[in-house]
Amino acid sequence: MIKITIIGSGNVAQHLIDAFAKSNTVEIIQVFSRTQKNISVNLSSSKITNDWNALTQADLYIIAVSDDAISSVSSLLPFENRLVVHTSGSAALTSLDDKNRKGVFYPLQTFTKGKAIDFKNIPFCLETQSENDYELLEKVAQSISDSIYKIDSHQRKALHVAAVFVNNFTNYLYQLGSEICQENNVSFDILKPLIHETAEKLLTLSPKDAQTGPAKRNDISTIEAHESFLSNENQSTIYKILTQSIQNHGKKL
Amino acid sequence: MIKITIIGSGNVAQHLIDAFAKSNTVEIIQVFSRTQKNISVNLSSSKITNDWNALTQADLYIIAVSDDAISSVSSLLPFENRLVVHTSGSAALTSLDDKNRKGVFYPLQTFTKGKAIDFKNIPFCLETQSENDYELLEKVAQSISDSIYKIDSHQRKALHVAAVFVNNFTNYLYQLGSEICQENNVSFDILKPLIHETAEKLLTLSPKDAQTGPAKRNDISTIEAHESFLSNENQSTIYKILTQSIQNHGKKL
Repeated sequence: MIKITIIGSGNVAQHLIDAFAKSNTVEIIQVFSRTQKNISVNLSSSKITNDWNALTQADLYIIAVSDDAISSVSSLLPFENRLVVHTSGSAALTSLDDKNRKGVFYPLQTFTKGKAIDFKNIPFCLETQSENDYELLEKVAQSISDSIYKIDSHQRKALHVAAVFVNNFTNYLYQLGSEICQENNVSFDILKPLIHETAEKLLTLSPKDAQTGPAKRNDISTIEAHESFLSNENQSTIYKILTQSIQNHGKKL
Repeated sequence: MIKITIIGSGNVAQHLIDAFAKSNTVEIIQVFSRTQKNISVNLSSSKITNDWNALTQADLYIIAVSDDAISSVSSLLPFENRLVVHTSGSAALTSLDDKNRKGVFYPLQTFTKGKAIDFKNIPFCLETQSENDYELLEKVAQSISDSIYKIDSHQRKALHVAAVFVNNFTNYLYQLGSEICQENNVSFDILKPLIHETAEKLLTLSPKDAQTGPAKRNDISTIEAHESFLSNENQSTIYKILTQSIQNHGKKL
């Protein structure tokens, strides 16, 4: 068994603990949690510590804390030359303290508290400073996921920015759509099958080939009708900017 | 059996023909197609005509043509006082010629040529000028879908604008995400489970409650890092506008 220790007790840490609990090749030997709170039904409370000096020898330490805490947490570890990774999409590999061997173990997914996730399909983006450490990190990821990618820090940064577009910004467009429905007394539920199908289309079409709508076909009369329909300034601004961007797309490139 | 005639042979017309072919209560008696092309394996070629005067008596005529052709097509119909509906989300009920009884039969979904769709879950937004005609239109919709909504022209306009946000604009964000991946030599496939989960979350959370990311938590250092990462002007403009809009959301309202 590969012995791992999780540092942190937030959303990502808890989902990882639940996933590793089902693994036959990886064992969580300890979890560091400042608050000693109830972390997971899959974890014996005797494994939880809030004392840095109580951390025992593991093959891998996974720091699953907020981005701005990675640096300080990694410097607090009371040992050297062990493999220590963080789980962040945006933090640099170099944000980890130099005293240990560094790596990144980034599950590219949105985690909701209390909502179970099937890790098998979650892409893990892996990076290690030393090539020698890659194999172990890969084995750990493979024990919970079928989707493993070797991704360097620059690529990971690109993925993280792209994820903001397809996750955060997309969800914000859902929110604006939901507002428009509410303001006009129609149920947002009517749009949910469309939202689902828009995402599913990507399994068979590239987003470029899947693009439809008044902006794409330059349907000026529909665009004008929509713009005059939208009285909310924020909705109207976003509508205009995205419509123009779709209309001009490819022209400037 | 309720007898219906479909006018048009485009994407929506073809999907409707395939759906009604499986219905036990509705029968397609004719399809008007200018081009006489092969419309569907589920339709006998003897039912296809390109002669307006060959149209026989039906209980309902569904005009499934592009928005700007609805008016002229409806005025070409060589009969009066029958029930004639269009399938558009954005065209007014009044775009139909006055000589027949008017209605709207709007399936709110994105249709891809050649991709089968399960109509059972597609919301149909129905409207009739005369209350007397509503029941028939509802029966026709119920024969292929479990999701029927009575929606007036104003509500339908709102839904159509909202659909642009959650479908066209969202797909465009997928395209920008895909570009960022391509430009940095990482596979867009890595983002697909995230895209899927972002859409699925709406089944349990409102988009407002599901909103996450650097803009939402006002994480200035991540936002600045992303802005300096994006060298493409179009991507950078969209990033800034949407980030600001998320940051200010609710403040101005």
